Amino acid sequence: MPSEFDIIADLFAPLATSKAAMGLKDDVAILGEIVLTTDTIIAGVDFFPNDPPDTIAKKALRVNLSDLAAKGARPFGYLLTLTLPRNTSESWLGRFAKGLRADQKTFGLTLLGGDISSTPGPLGITVAMFGRAPRGKAILRNRARVGDLVFVSGTLGDSGAGLAALKARKKQPKLIARYRVPEPRVALGQKLRGVASAALDVSDGLVADLGHIADTSGVHIVLDARALPLSKAYRAFIGNDPVRAATSGDDYEIAFTAPRSRRAKVLAAAKAARVPVTEIGWVMKGRGVALLDASGRPIALKKKGWQHF
Amino acid sequence: MPSEFDIIADLFAPLATSKAAMGLKDDVAILGEIVLTTDTIIAGVDFFPNDPPDTIAKKALRVNLSDLAAKGARPFGYLLTLTLPRNTSESWLGRFAKGLRADQKTFGLTLLGGDISSTPGPLGITVAMFGRAPRGKAILRNRARVGDLVFVSGTLGDSGAGLAALKARKKQPKLIARYRVPEPRVALGQKLRGVASAALDVSDGLVADLGHIADTSGVHIVLDARALPLSKAYRAFIGNDPVRAATSGDDYEIAFTAPRSRRAKVLAAAKAARVPVTEIGWVMKGRGVALLDASGRPIALKKKGWQHF
Repeated sequence: MPSEFDIIADLFAPLATSKAAMGLKDDVAILGEIVLTTDTIIAGVDFFPNDPPDTIAKKALRVNLSDLAAKGARPFGYLLTLTLPRNTSESWLGRFAKGLRADQKTFGLTLLGGDISSTPGPLGITVAMFGRAPRGKAILRNRARVGDLVFVSGTLGDSGAGLAALKARKKQPKLIARYRVPEPRVALGQKLRGVASAALDVSDGLVADLGHIADTSGVHIVLDARALPLSKAYRAFIGNDPVRAATSGDDYEIAFTAPRSRRAKVLAAAKAARVPVTEIGWVMKGRGVALLDASGRPIALKKKGWQHF
Repeated sequence: MPSEFDIIADLFAPLATSKAAMGLKDDVAILGEIVLTTDTIIAGVDFFPNDPPDTIAKKALRVNLSDLAAKGARPFGYLLTLTLPRNTSESWLGRFAKGLRADQKTFGLTLLGGDISSTPGPLGITVAMFGRAPRGKAILRNRARVGDLVFVSGTLGDSGAGLAALKARKKQPKLIARYRVPEPRVALGQKLRGVASAALDVSDGLVADLGHIADTSGVHIVLDARALPLSKAYRAFIGNDPVRAATSGDDYEIAFTAPRSRRAKVLAAAKAARVPVTEIGWVMKGRGVALLDASGRPIALKKKGWQHF
C-alpha cells in the first residue's frame, strides 16, 4: 500500500481544484476568513480504548485545534462524528461529553453539528474544526525563505515517551498526560501572524513535518540536534535522545520559520502567549531536512516520523 | 444503550451553544450563507465491503448532498476523512477517487481537505459538505404550519428493497442501484426555497424523518398510505406495500411541507427540477406522524425507521 502522502498527492490532490484547498499541501483549507481542518482519532491507533473518555474527547478536539493554531486562526466551532461500537455505555458517553464541554470552555468553542453511527469496529471520532483568521493572514507552509530561522514551541518527544510508558505499563504521569491530552498552542499561533513566515503543527514528528515546509517552500531545513527542547520528564525516562524526540509523533507543538530580523518579535510572541519557544535551526538553499549532530554532520534517520501505512 | 436521538438531545444538544447549530435539531448548521453538514458511512453498516469503490465514493458524497439539497443549499465543496484497513489496495483507492471525480463534476464540487487514517476496523468514510444558501433562505425543519400540505420527491422504499435484494442475492439492478448510489435532489431543493415551509431528506425512513418536522414544528402530520409513491420495480419485487416503503431507510428524497396556497408553485418547482413530486398528506394540530389506511385509520407501525442503536 502506498504511503498516505502518496495517496493524497496522487489521487486526491487532483480533486482539490479550488484555491481554498491549496492543493492539499497544507493542513487546512481557507474559505475567506474561515480556516477549516479535519482529523480523526481511532481507538487502538491514536488512543487506548480504556483511556478516560474525557481525555479522548479532548484529544479529538485538540489535534484539530493544533492545526488551526499553527495557521494563526482563532477556533470557534466544530462538527463531531462518532462511530460507536454498539456496546458503548451511556456512562462512557456522558464522560465523553463532559470532556467536550470542558474544552469548549477552555478554547471558546461551540458544537455546530455532527453524526453518530454504529460500527462493528473500534470507536472513531472525526472532528472538523472551524476557525477564523483575517483574510490573507493565515500562516501557510510554503513561505519559508532561505535565511529564515527555525523555531519550535514547548518540548519534543514527550507524547511519544508517554505512549512508550503506557505500552510498558510504567508510571510516567506527566508524559502520559501529554500523550492523552495535547496542549494546542492556540494563543501562540495567533501571536505569530505577521511574524512567522511558515508554520505547521508537529503531529507526525518534527523532521517529517518540517519536511512539508521544506517541500512546499522549496528550501532545505537544517536542525541542530543539541538545540531541540527536551523536558526533564523526557530526559529522566528516555535519556538525552533528541533524535527520538525529533521523529516521534503526537507533539502538537508549532514548528515555524521566521526571518532573522524578526527574532525579537518571535520571542515577544512567545512571552505574550506564555509558551516557551526555542530556536532550533535555519533555512538554506536545497531540499529536505537535515538533523545535525554536535560535529555538524547529518544524522542518518531510520524513520522520520509516524506513518499510517 | 440509548438511541442516537436521545444521545444527541441529552448529551450533545447542550454543547451546541451557537444559534448556527439550531440546537442540533436540523441536519445542518448555518454560518452566514454557508450551510454545512456531515455524515459517515461505514462498511458493513451503510454499504457492503465489496460494493464497487466508485459507488461507495458516490454514496459518501450523496448522503451529504442530500442533506444540503433538502435545505435548498447549493453545494460547493467537502472535506473527506478516510479510515482505511491496512490491506486497502492502490487499485481500490484509484477506483474510489474516480467515483469522487465523477460526482465532483456532476454536482460542481471541489475537495477542500481531509484526513487519512489506518484502522483495525472496517472502512469508514466521513464527509463534511459545504453549500451556500442566501442568508435566512435555507429551508428549516421547524416551520411547518397547521394547514400545510406534505409532499415527497421521487419514490419511496426502493433503496431498502435494493438492500433486501442484495442480502437475498436477487438480481434487482434498479433497486440495488438506488441503494448504492442515491440521487440527491439538489436542483429541486434550490427551487423549493421560498416555496416549502419545512423540509428534510428522507434517510432513516419517511415516518421517522417527518417525525422530526412534526416535533420541531409542534404539529401533527397525517400521511395517506395510498398516496405514497412506489416505483414499478418496488411493486414488482416487494409488492404494494406502502408501510414498508414509509419505514425503510436510505431513500434520500426530500420530504417537505408547503402552504396549500403554494401547491402550484410546488408543482412548478418539481417541473423545473425534472423530479416527480407527490402530495402525500397534510399538517394538523397535535404531535407525531400518523400513516392512514384506506379507511382513514392510523396504521400501527412496528418501527418507524432505521436506528443505529
